[in-house]
Amino acid sequence: MSKNYQNLSGLNFISIGGCSEIGMNLYAYIFDNQWILVDMGMGFDNSLGRELIVPSPKELIKNKSKIKALFITHSHEDHIGAIPYLWPMIECPIYARQFAIEMIKDKLSQFDLEKSVPLIKVALNQQIKVGKFSIEFIAMAHSTPESSALAIQTEAGTVIHSGDWRIDRDPVLGHKTDEEKLKQYGDKGVLALVCDSTNAFKEEHYGTEKEVRQNLIKLVEKYKGKRILITCFASNLARLESCYYAAKENGRKIIIVGRSMKKIEKVAKASGYLTDIPAFMDEWSVKDIDPANSLLVCTGSQGELNSALNKISHDEHRHIKLDKDDVVIFSSRTIPGNEKSVLEVQNALIEKGVKIITDLDYEIHASGHPSQEELKILYKLIHPKILIPIHGERIHLHKQADIAREYGIQETLIPYDGNIINISKAGAKVIDNIHNELLAVDGTKLIPLNGNVYKARAKLANDGLVSLCVKCPGELIKLLDFECIGIFEDSENEEIQEIKKAVENEIQLSFNNISREKLTNQKIKESIKKIVKTVFLENIGKKPLVITHVIA
Amino acid sequence: MSKNYQNLSGLNFISIGGCSEIGMNLYAYIFDNQWILVDMGMGFDNSLGRELIVPSPKELIKNKSKIKALFITHSHEDHIGAIPYLWPMIECPIYARQFAIEMIKDKLSQFDLEKSVPLIKVALNQQIKVGKFSIEFIAMAHSTPESSALAIQTEAGTVIHSGDWRIDRDPVLGHKTDEEKLKQYGDKGVLALVCDSTNAFKEEHYGTEKEVRQNLIKLVEKYKGKRILITCFASNLARLESCYYAAKENGRKIIIVGRSMKKIEKVAKASGYLTDIPAFMDEWSVKDIDPANSLLVCTGSQGELNSALNKISHDEHRHIKLDKDDVVIFSSRTIPGNEKSVLEVQNALIEKGVKIITDLDYEIHASGHPSQEELKILYKLIHPKILIPIHGERIHLHKQADIAREYGIQETLIPYDGNIINISKAGAKVIDNIHNELLAVDGTKLIPLNGNVYKARAKLANDGLVSLCVKCPGELIKLLDFECIGIFEDSENEEIQEIKKAVENEIQLSFNNISREKLTNQKIKESIKKIVKTVFLENIGKKPLVITHVIA
Repeated sequence: MSKNYQNLSGLNFISIGGCSEIGMNLYAYIFDNQWILVDMGMGFDNSLGRELIVPSPKELIKNKSKIKALFITHSHEDHIGAIPYLWPMIECPIYARQFAIEMIKDKLSQFDLEKSVPLIKVALNQQIKVGKFSIEFIAMAHSTPESSALAIQTEAGTVIHSGDWRIDRDPVLGHKTDEEKLKQYGDKGVLALVCDSTNAFKEEHYGTEKEVRQNLIKLVEKYKGKRILITCFASNLARLESCYYAAKENGRKIIIVGRSMKKIEKVAKASGYLTDIPAFMDEWSVKDIDPANSLLVCTGSQGELNSALNKISHDEHRHIKLDKDDVVIFSSRTIPGNEKSVLEVQNALIEKGVKIITDLDYEIHASGHPSQEELKILYKLIHPKILIPIHGERIHLHKQADIAREYGIQETLIPYDGNIINISKAGAKVIDNIHNELLAVDGTKLIPLNGNVYKARAKLANDGLVSLCVKCPGELIKLLDFECIGIFEDSENEEIQEIKKAVENEIQLSFNNISREKLTNQKIKESIKKIVKTVFLENIGKKPLVITHVIA
Repeated sequence: MSKNYQNLSGLNFISIGGCSEIGMNLYAYIFDNQWILVDMGMGFDNSLGRELIVPSPKELIKNKSKIKALFITHSHEDHIGAIPYLWPMIECPIYARQFAIEMIKDKLSQFDLEKSVPLIKVALNQQIKVGKFSIEFIAMAHSTPESSALAIQTEAGTVIHSGDWRIDRDPVLGHKTDEEKLKQYGDKGVLALVCDSTNAFKEEHYGTEKEVRQNLIKLVEKYKGKRILITCFASNLARLESCYYAAKENGRKIIIVGRSMKKIEKVAKASGYLTDIPAFMDEWSVKDIDPANSLLVCTGSQGELNSALNKISHDEHRHIKLDKDDVVIFSSRTIPGNEKSVLEVQNALIEKGVKIITDLDYEIHASGHPSQEELKILYKLIHPKILIPIHGERIHLHKQADIAREYGIQETLIPYDGNIINISKAGAKVIDNIHNELLAVDGTKLIPLNGNVYKARAKLANDGLVSLCVKCPGELIKLLDFECIGIFEDSENEEIQEIKKAVENEIQLSFNNISREKLTNQKIKESIKKIVKTVFLENIGKKPLVITHVIA
């Protein structure tokens, strides 16, 4: 890494997170030594005790005084979820549209941060001046309200940062993608489009939320008389509203289940959504309403461990129990990586005799990301000089670059997280790199995702651990205590005694003829570690981790 | 569990493994106190140090003297993979068709068991008498050669155990499903069909191996001049032969990569397959042949960690290196649960500029399991009184039961592993249960999948461990040593020293006024565990595992 990257000339772009996998969106634009950030999202990983993943703030802290603002494109967790962990180290104003602000506030309140963070509400088509940047939020249709593209204007040219989007020209809730405004920017000349790649493998349009709404209404009608539960993402307000209409058209009352559904309803109303709709009933009312007259809506479409649906599927929910002939509708698609947990919930539901309906049976899910067809519509509106694909696994980024080149955009650059990319009329070029790593939120700490802690935990998970206590009285080394964790099913069994004896014998043999003076504690530890590993490998075919306490 | 299940009357069926998820197929049929087993397969799970999963042999060992034979339907790992681990405790003769015998022999040779196991080669349409059972192997098409259904005939009636199968009336290698023979049994009367549920959600026929072959030939033609690698399952000989023809028709030489490909070629030739084809070249010859004149074929279509393709994707293969514009064809489908590992390999390949082609692009994979259409063909041929779905996740078993009922089979019973199911003209009924659990192969041990070892390892993986050494001199308890694993990134940092001091202080406070005589070691350990957990929770937000060595 160059030491001089802090004096960059021209317009530069860094993906701090968001270009290695879906999640952790955090981007920086740098012009004339001034920084703005776009999004501050989390990634998902629950292995080895991790709670969630965030990009490292190290380089941001270093440039703290230069960071003028953070702009939020929309309220999904992969765009705002890292704020409580990273913002306190950066402390810049946050610009967002109202719905995102309400979502961020709710999140900050759980960290006692709601009063510290300067949140600035932005209107569409307002030019926001921040240092040498001028930014405009442009309406984009997505699976949560008020998603925006950002027109990032500098003296070096304009970049359109797409955020998450799709084309839906007849949305049931919220705004359409503002094709006219995008075209205006296109006509004025756009240097680069930095664009969502999630669905780059999908050729044609997905169905729309309106079609999904109609299908949900019909489905609820079809299962007249039965208890019906719909599971979907809470943040998709259009879907939530569709559930309401599916209930209403069929003479049912909607009952929402789970904390996040309740939260979304509150945030939605505070932002001016769902206002024509009476307050949803909550799960406590389940007992008072005939199942045939209600429609349950809950989270857990991805099989998440603590979600309402997971609990319901295992009969562990306080208020809701499903039985034979009840119907569960998955108004969702399984996110890659969640297949096993979704299957596990579906297995449990089907054991009860529950009828399961998914998007394989009916069109009851619409994606919020652009297919190839939609990408080309955007390319046509903006006709950028450069296309920089973001938001995806590497194969998605490469696929969007292919599509753009085939379309006729000559310059594409697929960023790695950490690349400093200079964007100019001459093209896009990686000119340097910043230190780049991912951190896991784990308890109250931030721990490097690929560091010593997780290497040790992975080894513990694989092989278990032996802890020994030895004493060195004079020339002798004596084994005082010996404990194994994660190795033997029964802590009292003979096998352990035999292995202990074997270790004891080996220790006697090894240290017998060595003068105590020549042995440092470090050397004793190393020798005992070797002995234990050898004995265990012979006896159980594995080498556990070893802790040796040497007592003087 | 009844103590009397050992004196069962009539014909009884037990799924010992195979009805909770795909894998671990092991079934018992019991008639007049005589047992036969069908298949002895492994399951796949690499978490927490597990290598593979096998059903518990406990009840089989108990009934060892009654077990007359093990019948193998075909050679896939989920049908033969547990033999080296379980057979030595059961020691019965194994009946199988030649290809499976060769595969089993190869497997046994790795365990020095090839001379101990009595392997009996079976021909199609041969009546094998074993005690009061008469068994006939019936040809079924599948994605590996010589898959067979078993007609299990007893005085109480006939059961058809389908094995893994599909209908392919024009297979490119091996036999067709013997519909005529199945119909003969159907006409004589079949009490129960015990049947493969894997693809019960698929409505229509999949493409055939012949179509796949034609498409592979065309694809290799399309990428004339380029280096091409095809990845597929080694055990699918038809596919391997198709790769050969795809090479030959395009003037290329086939080069197979990886140990399992080499093994399959050997086994195939020993069983009379691929005999018209010259010996494949192996990976050492890569350097001698122009990439445009060769076709690489290798394992790793599921992204498996040690597979050839995984190594190639990370430039860690000794002989093969892929570059920009090379082509990798996934002639496979991703098995649920493997999405992440496949994505990881594809991400790595695409980074090199490799062109990836999957079954989403062309029909280059055919399944070996029956769709709904094919299930109904079998139901029509056999028209069993009872349908018992096996081989699938719970949702697959339930789905097949639905299909069978809709078709008109009145009696269906979805087994749990461990159910003892009496099968008679009166129907199928769960009459008792055997002890049932799964074991993981881990090092040289078999460890209960849900027992103490894996609970401890999961906890270690999540929270790490603290090991302490304390001494009780007189009234005092003194902290002698303190080690943490999987908690702190840097073992020398101040945070550890502070936490150690806090633990030390708490120990002083807690034990200060307690008379040493009242304290057992057990009580000291419990108190210290509590102290450590409290201090760590306050400091890092997590409670690690604690080992306390108490030194007198």
